[in-house]
Amino acid sequence: MPELSGRARLAPPSPIRRLAPLAEAARARGIHVHHLNIGQPDLATPDPMRAALGKFQDETIAYGPAEGLPACRTAWRQYYTEAGLPLSDSEFVVTTAGSEALLFALAAVANPGDRVLVPEPLYANNLGFATLLGIEVVPIPCTVEDGYHLPENLASYLAPRTRAILYANPGNPTGTVYRRRELERIAALAEEHDLFVIADEVYREFVYAGAEPGSGVLASGRSLSVLELEGLEERAILVDSFSKRYSLCGARIGAIASRNPELMAAVRRFAMARLSPPVLGQLVAAAAVELGADYFATVRTSYRRRRDLAVKALRAIPGVSCPEPEGAFYVMARLPIPDAEAFVKFLLESFAIDGETTMLAPANGFYATPGAGQSEVRVAYVLEEERLARALRIVAEGLRAFQAASRPVATARAS
Amino acid sequence: MPELSGRARLAPPSPIRRLAPLAEAARARGIHVHHLNIGQPDLATPDPMRAALGKFQDETIAYGPAEGLPACRTAWRQYYTEAGLPLSDSEFVVTTAGSEALLFALAAVANPGDRVLVPEPLYANNLGFATLLGIEVVPIPCTVEDGYHLPENLASYLAPRTRAILYANPGNPTGTVYRRRELERIAALAEEHDLFVIADEVYREFVYAGAEPGSGVLASGRSLSVLELEGLEERAILVDSFSKRYSLCGARIGAIASRNPELMAAVRRFAMARLSPPVLGQLVAAAAVELGADYFATVRTSYRRRRDLAVKALRAIPGVSCPEPEGAFYVMARLPIPDAEAFVKFLLESFAIDGETTMLAPANGFYATPGAGQSEVRVAYVLEEERLARALRIVAEGLRAFQAASRPVATARAS
Repeated sequence: MPELSGRARLAPPSPIRRLAPLAEAARARGIHVHHLNIGQPDLATPDPMRAALGKFQDETIAYGPAEGLPACRTAWRQYYTEAGLPLSDSEFVVTTAGSEALLFALAAVANPGDRVLVPEPLYANNLGFATLLGIEVVPIPCTVEDGYHLPENLASYLAPRTRAILYANPGNPTGTVYRRRELERIAALAEEHDLFVIADEVYREFVYAGAEPGSGVLASGRSLSVLELEGLEERAILVDSFSKRYSLCGARIGAIASRNPELMAAVRRFAMARLSPPVLGQLVAAAAVELGADYFATVRTSYRRRRDLAVKALRAIPGVSCPEPEGAFYVMARLPIPDAEAFVKFLLESFAIDGETTMLAPANGFYATPGAGQSEVRVAYVLEEERLARALRIVAEGLRAFQAASRPVATARAS
Repeated sequence: MPELSGRARLAPPSPIRRLAPLAEAARARGIHVHHLNIGQPDLATPDPMRAALGKFQDETIAYGPAEGLPACRTAWRQYYTEAGLPLSDSEFVVTTAGSEALLFALAAVANPGDRVLVPEPLYANNLGFATLLGIEVVPIPCTVEDGYHLPENLASYLAPRTRAILYANPGNPTGTVYRRRELERIAALAEEHDLFVIADEVYREFVYAGAEPGSGVLASGRSLSVLELEGLEERAILVDSFSKRYSLCGARIGAIASRNPELMAAVRRFAMARLSPPVLGQLVAAAAVELGADYFATVRTSYRRRRDLAVKALRAIPGVSCPEPEGAFYVMARLPIPDAEAFVKFLLESFAIDGETTMLAPANGFYATPGAGQSEVRVAYVLEEERLARALRIVAEGLRAFQAASRPVATARAS
């Protein structure tokens, strides 16, 4: 038999999804599983979007343009204008979710064997797409003690053939919102070392910190965009998505944007190869123009309360430490155990309270550095408060049970 | 500014889509454009599929599983069983159309710098995805005189690092259906030289030739599948799609299938990186189970009549030659001019009959060999007969006008 390609053998499983069979098995045993492992919001997709589905009248569900349907492009253009990021028609392409935007961005800037710097912990699918494209991810380690903010000397992580720096702001899995001077440090690095800057800003609307000077939070409540950084004009590439913003993950509608015309020309050629983004998802996404101006404020308030609850509940567990994330809907927590993945499996396989258990994402999959993040988990606070509190109580009680079960036998006897 | 990657600079524009702005401009001048350039069927999406849209009741348009929603997987499983290709649950993954299936298949078998053999003319997006992945396409030239059937000695096209042979059967852009002995030749090549075999069979149901012995057409009227070839068990990879089969191109629902467990495990990891195929498209596709057993027969009859009309009309144009394609809904035609792309542009920019013109796909984009296919066009017979006849009359009259306009002035004076 012929061997699979190296990228096939090296492609990492998703830390968010690879334990899904254990959750299936728990459900088969009649256990309700609270999913804090995946960034799937429980919020309803806004009414005008769901209503758009019933309005579809075409006889044929046909291809749309490679760069997106006009109605969907209008929704994106309007969103960007309201967000203070006006983009011309040639400066963005509608993609099959943020995933495809990331694929196109990486492919546009790096050849096989090239390197891309990524602050770590990182969005796990960065690794998946980099592997698919034969690109090496060079991690910039950040720590829970620093709230996963960037280290001072970014240049020390440069290696030959480094083509870009890629970051998520607000961060996934960290929830960290970079301060203005951190972003300026990235911009300076890019200018000095001739790099592209790829920013995943799908959580731009989910910021809970105040707009203090230097905070990296704008008066609008949004995080500072890569498109607003000085000196980056043609280096900046925005990876974006409607998935989280409108609770629309299944529609698979994202965008890639840049003010670099050659880059966008290449992106349009990549987009032609896959013909068209999903048309039905685009029809739904197009209804974003019907949403009220207060839509994001309402959503933000709801998530801020959840964040506060999650951080408080996690910090109340003995031995658990976590920063207070400024944005997104994730919090990373370090557990007082050496193998957080074993704990995640334990919750799914061997623990329940009143027929319920909780699924978390083991954080090792969010690290490119081998062996890093073994004690950490990512918690997605995507449930309403009452359920979230119950799910985190299960984590607290489960951790106690897990620690008791895994205490060495000799010690147990001695105690 | 940093340079774009090599793949970004080399990514080819789609021959089907790159002239779209000229069609836009024609429409803006009030001209109706008959689109014979793109495989977008005019047939209505079946009623049960469109009705499925109105039945969506979930509050949230949420992620589905990476390998596809259960209901959509059921539809695929049922389709494969009816097509005589039973597949177990682990042997296929739902993809974002055939495009993504092709991306995953190529990525799974070839590293950057590896080679893949492809009979030429070829599906243009093979080149797009190969370029994205840093894979070199090695063309196996086929000719209009042979009806684009395969040459005898496939092994003579092998180069170092050849990892797979990729073909479309029925062919796009050729419509050629390979005979059984051609497919056996491919299988023998793969076994002797340890290659994977990737078969794009999205037109499996669109076969117009009879099921004579050796024809490569089964009694069911379908073309012979790569999954039915002996000796290929773990080498065979199927790229599939519901797009053409159910006039569902905009839903973006495809599948990749293989009986090689390691390969499918890698494909599932690739699939995790992009989280989920489009959920709304999957809901629509799931309604395939409601269609009657005669659905494909009806569709096939309709396309066969169109093929007969198109071939007859094209052959009636002086100097035009085209084979009679056995399947798909394309016919390649060689025109009596050196630059078919200039003619395609001429039709869009400078020609109309009664306010109508026709768009064709210049065939040079379907060739990896530089300079090949300059005189050829691909005609997609995706309009009902009356319109198709009108569109092809425009081609015939337009060609005469184009030849008159491009005749050298000296010759014109002499005549």
